[in-house]
Amino acid sequence: MALNDTHRVELASWVESAQTPGSSFPIQNLPFGVFKRTGRNEAPRVGVALGDQIVDITACLDEGLLAGAARTAGECCRRPQLNDLMAMGPEPVSALRRSLSELLRAESAAYHRDPGIAHRVLVPMYEAELRLPAVIGDYSDFYASIDHARNVGSMFRPNDPLLPNYKYVPIGYHGRASSIVLSGTQVRRPTGQLRDDPEQQPIVAPTRRLDYEIELGVFVGAGNPLGSPIPIMDADRHIFGCCLLNDWSARDIQSWEYQPLGPFLAKSFATTISPWVVTLEALEPFRVEAYVRPDGDPQPLPYLLWDSDQRRGGLDIRLEVYLRTATMRQRSQDPVLVSRGRFTSMYWTVAQLIAHHTSNGCNLRPGDLLGSGTVSGPEAESRGSLIERTWRGRDPLRLANGESRTFLADGDEIIMRGYCERPGFARIGFGECRGMIVPAA
Amino acid sequence: MALNDTHRVELASWVESAQTPGSSFPIQNLPFGVFKRTGRNEAPRVGVALGDQIVDITACLDEGLLAGAARTAGECCRRPQLNDLMAMGPEPVSALRRSLSELLRAESAAYHRDPGIAHRVLVPMYEAELRLPAVIGDYSDFYASIDHARNVGSMFRPNDPLLPNYKYVPIGYHGRASSIVLSGTQVRRPTGQLRDDPEQQPIVAPTRRLDYEIELGVFVGAGNPLGSPIPIMDADRHIFGCCLLNDWSARDIQSWEYQPLGPFLAKSFATTISPWVVTLEALEPFRVEAYVRPDGDPQPLPYLLWDSDQRRGGLDIRLEVYLRTATMRQRSQDPVLVSRGRFTSMYWTVAQLIAHHTSNGCNLRPGDLLGSGTVSGPEAESRGSLIERTWRGRDPLRLANGESRTFLADGDEIIMRGYCERPGFARIGFGECRGMIVPAA
Repeated sequence: MALNDTHRVELASWVESAQTPGSSFPIQNLPFGVFKRTGRNEAPRVGVALGDQIVDITACLDEGLLAGAARTAGECCRRPQLNDLMAMGPEPVSALRRSLSELLRAESAAYHRDPGIAHRVLVPMYEAELRLPAVIGDYSDFYASIDHARNVGSMFRPNDPLLPNYKYVPIGYHGRASSIVLSGTQVRRPTGQLRDDPEQQPIVAPTRRLDYEIELGVFVGAGNPLGSPIPIMDADRHIFGCCLLNDWSARDIQSWEYQPLGPFLAKSFATTISPWVVTLEALEPFRVEAYVRPDGDPQPLPYLLWDSDQRRGGLDIRLEVYLRTATMRQRSQDPVLVSRGRFTSMYWTVAQLIAHHTSNGCNLRPGDLLGSGTVSGPEAESRGSLIERTWRGRDPLRLANGESRTFLADGDEIIMRGYCERPGFARIGFGECRGMIVPAA
Repeated sequence: MALNDTHRVELASWVESAQTPGSSFPIQNLPFGVFKRTGRNEAPRVGVALGDQIVDITACLDEGLLAGAARTAGECCRRPQLNDLMAMGPEPVSALRRSLSELLRAESAAYHRDPGIAHRVLVPMYEAELRLPAVIGDYSDFYASIDHARNVGSMFRPNDPLLPNYKYVPIGYHGRASSIVLSGTQVRRPTGQLRDDPEQQPIVAPTRRLDYEIELGVFVGAGNPLGSPIPIMDADRHIFGCCLLNDWSARDIQSWEYQPLGPFLAKSFATTISPWVVTLEALEPFRVEAYVRPDGDPQPLPYLLWDSDQRRGGLDIRLEVYLRTATMRQRSQDPVLVSRGRFTSMYWTVAQLIAHHTSNGCNLRPGDLLGSGTVSGPEAESRGSLIERTWRGRDPLRLANGESRTFLADGDEIIMRGYCERPGFARIGFGECRGMIVPAA
């Protein structure tokens, strides 16, 4: 993929809110999601976000505003999930985005011919409910930040923080698809087996170490047949786009259960994702060099090594985590920033994750979701989970209003934001991924 | 659930092959599956196995042979998967099985009124293709045999064979749903990272330690909402039925990748299941006491302990694994038995697995699949995987025809069989779960 007309910073839209400074959704973004107009008895369908509006692609089709390949791709948007569009692969999606870009830009011929289309194809976000963007067949979660692996490893295995496989294997595990919920869904504090004292029997209690993990979610586009690995040079063609992902974690459940088969109930109670899927095409201007391995680290094995991926397989996405406690809500205080990181700190590229995942022949299907693993960088403020920020509770976070946190309290809301910025290019935002903790049952 | 009219050993069917001695599918079984008549341009639909025939439930409906609750449940069988029927919960399924039992038994009024229904509702198995019985949203794999955990643990962690959590936590992990295939599907030998020598870099090569694991697969019936655990006393109501499951495993990939997040590519290349789902109702006569924990073992924690489950939560299912090598096929030699085990050796009951899985609020959905974990017992011949049978290759299996095996060779076919037998009751069979290894790509 390369830069094209849809990336031009000069593009403006006749939808005025798309030009609001700091907007997540300028015309250069056009992320896909699934919405339903509130109070209408109609099935959810696919739209794209633009400013504070949703462009209803079904309405665009019905108005005859899409033609050719864009129309073919657009027909998949009548469905209540993105899977069919994802399955088409990058070219049809690109054609659809290009046509939408032309339709929605300030100089749009269609709009100037008939400005009334604004009322017929736009749905204000406040009049819509969002849904999960895809039916997620399988969800796989990786561990691609070496700083996160080292931080957590040093707490769980002080003598063995970074295991010998880390620099060779893009470590991942299967996650739970059924409990993936949309931003805004409340998260119930899970109950589970805890054992603080190795001399005692475990107890069953609500987790005392409830945590978030900020990750990038990656939606698979076109799938691969079982038995046919995706070579790293083809990996990008199988990526539809990205969202924000909160891999909620119960650390005390995790430390007791995770040996020898990995995390299970410590994670499967909820995973929250943001509603808008930012296409890989929209992220194109923010491609950067892959993580530069320090001297002494091994080169990636051949199936994970491709020159172009090394040169531009990184994605410069900035990620922020905000916390709003119940007290802050009562006092109408703003959420406070608790960490900020960059996806450039990841040891493995998304293409490497795809190539590794399928290297044994495992089939990915359209709509499958990959989590990147917690995005942590080397600085303390870039650590993407509370267990890292507070060093397992040793160094509580002191909040500006006098409160402090080691792990999450009931009523705490975690708000994740992500965006890309680069001089000469429009800001591409991911919107928000929110979730509030409610007390255990 | 309790014994009812459908369990009576005296019942015979007007379908003669149902009475064949040793048949898997007498009228007392009536397992559900999805089939399509070969060469017909029609959608797959649900049927039940009876002798060497498939009872086409859609045809039964169209013939007006089902009424009331059985008809309501039967309407779900027009679909190409069992999910809708599974979602109904146990009573409608029981009503459908009872009606089918009455329709198909020797003294059936409907049959004697019109013997021509035989041609209209039966499809010979040899004229049908079978499909995966359900759309499997999530697949979770457990580790419920303490003998298996101890055997494998002592190879991977000689100093620490059985971890401290084992007797408290029904250990499980998320598996890969996309690569679950039906019995008869060829399995390609996966390629992956291997590291035999800790002093060397890993290499990428086809696995040299390809193994099977015999497990019981458990299909979820009615689901639970996210955030609402299933109490152990309700667990059976959420189980639709069981099948055989082969959890193919690449041991060399596994030992290198599995720390710290568990098995991933070592398993996700293929999991094979048998096509017919034996209902929990059909297994009712084979309920036995749960595993009796030896003195010194802790009691299950309260959420895993229910008197009725302790008294009759075990299932006396016999499981056999046969191997047929390429040489045996060339010489027309029969497959050889390589292991036989009993599900009664499992440390945790199926109800305990369900209660544990949902104890954190994780939602199960109709059609979700649980694997029991390898079924191994204390005797050498009851070890349910080659790594255990050959003690990681140290003691090769000597086959009767002069061949030997440490792990699986290309061309090897693994055939799993399962059945229940008890004096005074009809034999309930699971049919077969087959898969042949084909060379790496």
